[in-house]
Amino acid sequence: MKKVVVIGGGVGAKGFLNASFAMNDDIEYTLIRSNERGPVPCGIPYAFGTLDDPNENLSTDKNLLDNNVKMVIDDAVEIDPETKHVKTKSGKVFDYDNLILATGSHPVFPPFPGRELRGIHVIEKDLDKVVELKKEIEKAKSVVIVGGGFIGIELADEITKMGNKSITLVELADHCLSVAFEPHISIEIEDVLKSHNINIITGVGVESFEGKESVERVKLGDGQLIDADLVIVAIGAYPNVDLAKMIDLDLDDRKAIKVNEFQQTSDEDIFAIGDCASKIDIFTNKTSNIRLASVAAKEGRNAALNLGDQKKPLSVIGIMNLFSTSVGGKYFAAAGMTKAQCLNEGFEVVEVEVSAPNHHPGTLPGTIVTRSVFFFDSADLKLLGAQLIGDKEVAEVVNTLGIAIQNNVGAMDLYSYNYGTHPLGTASPNHYILHQAGLKAITAK
Amino acid sequence: MKKVVVIGGGVGAKGFLNASFAMNDDIEYTLIRSNERGPVPCGIPYAFGTLDDPNENLSTDKNLLDNNVKMVIDDAVEIDPETKHVKTKSGKVFDYDNLILATGSHPVFPPFPGRELRGIHVIEKDLDKVVELKKEIEKAKSVVIVGGGFIGIELADEITKMGNKSITLVELADHCLSVAFEPHISIEIEDVLKSHNINIITGVGVESFEGKESVERVKLGDGQLIDADLVIVAIGAYPNVDLAKMIDLDLDDRKAIKVNEFQQTSDEDIFAIGDCASKIDIFTNKTSNIRLASVAAKEGRNAALNLGDQKKPLSVIGIMNLFSTSVGGKYFAAAGMTKAQCLNEGFEVVEVEVSAPNHHPGTLPGTIVTRSVFFFDSADLKLLGAQLIGDKEVAEVVNTLGIAIQNNVGAMDLYSYNYGTHPLGTASPNHYILHQAGLKAITAK
Repeated sequence: MKKVVVIGGGVGAKGFLNASFAMNDDIEYTLIRSNERGPVPCGIPYAFGTLDDPNENLSTDKNLLDNNVKMVIDDAVEIDPETKHVKTKSGKVFDYDNLILATGSHPVFPPFPGRELRGIHVIEKDLDKVVELKKEIEKAKSVVIVGGGFIGIELADEITKMGNKSITLVELADHCLSVAFEPHISIEIEDVLKSHNINIITGVGVESFEGKESVERVKLGDGQLIDADLVIVAIGAYPNVDLAKMIDLDLDDRKAIKVNEFQQTSDEDIFAIGDCASKIDIFTNKTSNIRLASVAAKEGRNAALNLGDQKKPLSVIGIMNLFSTSVGGKYFAAAGMTKAQCLNEGFEVVEVEVSAPNHHPGTLPGTIVTRSVFFFDSADLKLLGAQLIGDKEVAEVVNTLGIAIQNNVGAMDLYSYNYGTHPLGTASPNHYILHQAGLKAITAK
Repeated sequence: MKKVVVIGGGVGAKGFLNASFAMNDDIEYTLIRSNERGPVPCGIPYAFGTLDDPNENLSTDKNLLDNNVKMVIDDAVEIDPETKHVKTKSGKVFDYDNLILATGSHPVFPPFPGRELRGIHVIEKDLDKVVELKKEIEKAKSVVIVGGGFIGIELADEITKMGNKSITLVELADHCLSVAFEPHISIEIEDVLKSHNINIITGVGVESFEGKESVERVKLGDGQLIDADLVIVAIGAYPNVDLAKMIDLDLDDRKAIKVNEFQQTSDEDIFAIGDCASKIDIFTNKTSNIRLASVAAKEGRNAALNLGDQKKPLSVIGIMNLFSTSVGGKYFAAAGMTKAQCLNEGFEVVEVEVSAPNHHPGTLPGTIVTRSVFFFDSADLKLLGAQLIGDKEVAEVVNTLGIAIQNNVGAMDLYSYNYGTHPLGTASPNHYILHQAGLKAITAK
């Protein structure tokens, strides 16, 4: 019986295991992870507001236990690739035939002066720490969130639901969520947050934290002082390659673990998946810094598919932006590159805006207008990216666009396709946004 | 200036015009249609319940008027393809360079004995008639709907919202909506309708209508008599080729107007689009009887694209099932072939069922479980069809599946793709139904 050891218990690890249970026979699985209870990572912001109890944001181990995975709650501290074993902090040793590194990422936490003060937090993917953090936030009167990415804006908005706090969000870039959205969409999101009494400060970073034992103020680059008895730093994550470096696995230019198209590292018996692993951008073939749960899940599936000797490349190796979020009852979603990303990568773009009521007739109750912007390569009208604002379903429309991009679809294809429509579920057949976007791009040339 | 005359004012006609305005220059458009005010065709059922006033189901002419289309409310009764002119009932004559036949379909209304009785209706795509029909339904105490297709079931459910009526739906096939759904899904829809006090009778057809001047009873094939003071027959539609036949345009084996890949009829100056035009099934390359507004819209776009001399085939010529509906707050959606259709066409299928909560964690408020069934060709695991039950977003997920099918996607592709996920908008990254379906199909072999 083959022995597979997985280090890490996040989305990549579970994606691998779920697929491998179905795909591979005669394997004895051991999973080593540090935390007793894993959270649903993308659900963490919602543990602070929408969910009554943060414990409801548990990522269940049921399927692992049902499939007899040996669960080891411990830190893996040593790998010997020669004798193929892993050692844990408590001294346990596990043999492996294949090792799956799903070690995730570390939160970025720059050495701001005052960083050691009490009350300054990063988000850790450990449900018990989430529960603790919620208790701390409940006590706080002034909360500063550093970082206006998805986690930052969702956290800020959710914390408003706890009531009675002053909340400030600080983003170094000109706008929140600039990786995902055009400035005008980011501004719309910021406006929702402002309407929820969140103080948004963009275009300026943190200079230092001030206080005696606990944080009392955040000092910004422009000299502003913001009162804070609790700070959450959510400005990104970098690959956790601590173990990989100890055994000299090759890293990429972003210091993530290099992998081939089958998720194998430079040691062919060791696979890497998720935030710790290198990723290739689907548009540019360059390494990518998009570290998403959904990407980790895909890489987990890839490792499961290719655990045996017979290698089968996935249909799509590269990864891409596929984002959505919701604030103030509106949904915002993005697929592919922003205009700035297109231009940075040397694409000239045809930009088109289209909108349509999401029901037809638009007089039906609950109708809202879906708005969108699309970017096509001006050379061949290939779809490069699109962003949508609308009701909940736009979180699925980005997956339509995602499959389109992963099939190298262009404006004429969007114009050509059959789309299903229904009064209560979609735009009208003559206003469906995908073919409208195709038409506008074709006729813009 | 080129003269284009459009006969018919439905979805195909408007799809053609909307696209042609953007795509073609120097055209003088004339639109000839019988009705003063066109309804949104798929919205007609909702004119009887959800919409306060059926007049809210108007398909606006604004874009036509803004683009100086000459609107002629009249019946086109004669075409002379030699001199290229169209004559109307009132004697007006219009020259054309190109003629667009968008004459739609006639409702199927078999010669049941008693058919001439007052109170027996078909659904006509004329808003004034919809308004009239609503008044009639308001007066009725016992309504029988003949036909359990989309129009039939939506009508029945909407009429319950008018209150205080006995409503019976009669379907000849074993189950409602058998063109779109597996029997177990049809049964679920029927159960919703039954819970709304609709009497559902399947597997038996209408024998005759009984009554003196007005209908009083519907007699079924098994002898049952159902009280009825109003009947709506909604058992399908057949192409309106009255004009086409007068000028000897070629028809297909389903008696629809034959068209080439550019929507041109056997007279190259005359295009046909929408319900009156022949369609090719994407899976079988045979003629198809799927007559949908969304297909008409696509054919309208095709005619607009190919109105000039330079012909550009659409990326996808064929058409396919892409359906959704909603009853009792649940949404039901289908893409591609049912299992029965697969088997009828000689495909052996791999059938997989997958489900996932539509939020993650599933403890988030409003979470429901999306359930689905997928059919893959057992020879190569190409996706042939899928059906979903869930919340509103499944009406968009079928479009993801539609684009997948139109790109000849298979189980390995679904397993491979990147999907975007968000706690409030989709299933979790490890349970997203498309990759789950791919995995199950790959491992089912």
